[in-house]
Amino acid sequence: MAYPRGYFLVPWKSVDFPDEDSLELSVSDVEVVRGGTVESRHRVHAVVADADGRPVAAIGDPKTLTFHRSAAKPLQALPLVEEGVAERFGFSQAELALCCASHEGEAPHVDGARSILAKAGADESLLRCGAHLPYSEAAAGELLASGGSPGRIHNNCSGKHAGMIALAIGLGWDPVDYHRAEHPVQRRMVREIIRWSGMAEEEIPMAVDGCGVVCFATPLDVMAASFARYSAAADEGEAAADVVAAMTRHPFMVGGTGRTCTDVMEVAGDRVFVKLGAEGV
Amino acid sequence: MAYPRGYFLVPWKSVDFPDEDSLELSVSDVEVVRGGTVESRHRVHAVVADADGRPVAAIGDPKTLTFHRSAAKPLQALPLVEEGVAERFGFSQAELALCCASHEGEAPHVDGARSILAKAGADESLLRCGAHLPYSEAAAGELLASGGSPGRIHNNCSGKHAGMIALAIGLGWDPVDYHRAEHPVQRRMVREIIRWSGMAEEEIPMAVDGCGVVCFATPLDVMAASFARYSAAADEGEAAADVVAAMTRHPFMVGGTGRTCTDVMEVAGDRVFVKLGAEGV
Repeated sequence: MAYPRGYFLVPWKSVDFPDEDSLELSVSDVEVVRGGTVESRHRVHAVVADADGRPVAAIGDPKTLTFHRSAAKPLQALPLVEEGVAERFGFSQAELALCCASHEGEAPHVDGARSILAKAGADESLLRCGAHLPYSEAAAGELLASGGSPGRIHNNCSGKHAGMIALAIGLGWDPVDYHRAEHPVQRRMVREIIRWSGMAEEEIPMAVDGCGVVCFATPLDVMAASFARYSAAADEGEAAADVVAAMTRHPFMVGGTGRTCTDVMEVAGDRVFVKLGAEGV
Repeated sequence: MAYPRGYFLVPWKSVDFPDEDSLELSVSDVEVVRGGTVESRHRVHAVVADADGRPVAAIGDPKTLTFHRSAAKPLQALPLVEEGVAERFGFSQAELALCCASHEGEAPHVDGARSILAKAGADESLLRCGAHLPYSEAAAGELLASGGSPGRIHNNCSGKHAGMIALAIGLGWDPVDYHRAEHPVQRRMVREIIRWSGMAEEEIPMAVDGCGVVCFATPLDVMAASFARYSAAADEGEAAADVVAAMTRHPFMVGGTGRTCTDVMEVAGDRVFVKLGAEGV
């Protein structure tokens, strides 16, 4: 389901819907309430898909076209597993989880991104995500108080970027400017979106994400179907299982203190894997 | 007009509408576009009111009930002028502007809030807004690099709070816990909302704002009417003129680097005064 400031809640263990034909979603608005008075409302578009990618229930407009943004990260991390790069460079499970992260820039995130780069034999200067202070106010404070300054390694997407650099090196591609649409790394990412969505490349609007790499838009029902199929593949022990296991066993690495993805997976254990994206996905 | 991530654009000089009966607003959605593809949409509710507070045009639902949040600050600063407190303590025009600010915590803002408190003979520890790092990343960096830590004085509402403390002292009230709903300062603020909105107190939902003081909800058309009347009063040289002059002549003090209010007033000069509020007001 996608909420405006939202979540991808993807049950990857089989879920018994009470009655698929009668499943109803009843939330249509998210209300922001202050002192008992509704302050603002956000419309919800949501789709539930079954393991075959068929829509089971929807509210709002299930054909709403929007970008995956960071919710695509579990799909984008999959080539690291399938191409044997994560294994070859000896990524830990926590490091694979970090490749799927929108993180707070806390020590385990920054150390993890550095470790991924070191294992791939890559220099931090290859990173093409922008420099910003750690999202975590505590981590930002520590960095600045110790005389440091915001770096690309602190970017909330640095794990994904480090993983993309490792993918390039692991597959023998020049990692320089791995973020450009024409680079083999980004071409590989397009293939993942095509694979899970079942859409043709020319049907998938692409743009530049906030962190500089290519991002992908599909209708919401297609997005739900992609993640349902991915979850089913994980359930059947395919390579996606490694990504899902990494995320659900290392929720902190997927976000950090106070992040929704982290909090949900810490509570839900291995029953749910979650990745939110910007702009309410 | 109120936009979701929005503005109060209040023309305080008389505006000649081309034809009041035919004025039409044509924006109904704000679209967030990424690479030519619409990523998300925000509905717009907007009301234009004339100097008598009559609605001239509207889109969406003009009766939408929402909180003023920080957009109320120009109304909340008015008692400092009307009660003679700003004059008695010798506030500069820039300091009066700061009382209306949602600021970035840059040096002029922090120095201004300290100056207001000093002129009123008040200690910084009286502030009841929460401590947070300056919104400005540069200012936050400087603070922490110099061994400082986030204080209440850096809160984006510290100018308003310093003004409220000064109001209490100037009127002979105990300034301690000036933020509580039952304190004479907050009772005085309620009177301003009643005065400009024309609503009865029991019709105005109240809650606690993010910075700890009372905030007020009215329908959007009433909010527009309040600001239109306030603008008209300023235009006629009433006390509101001092607040409007302070804001339009010191736009930096109302926000700071990169803030919408500051940017608009720097461009518009004295033709428009602007104050946005949280949650899209």
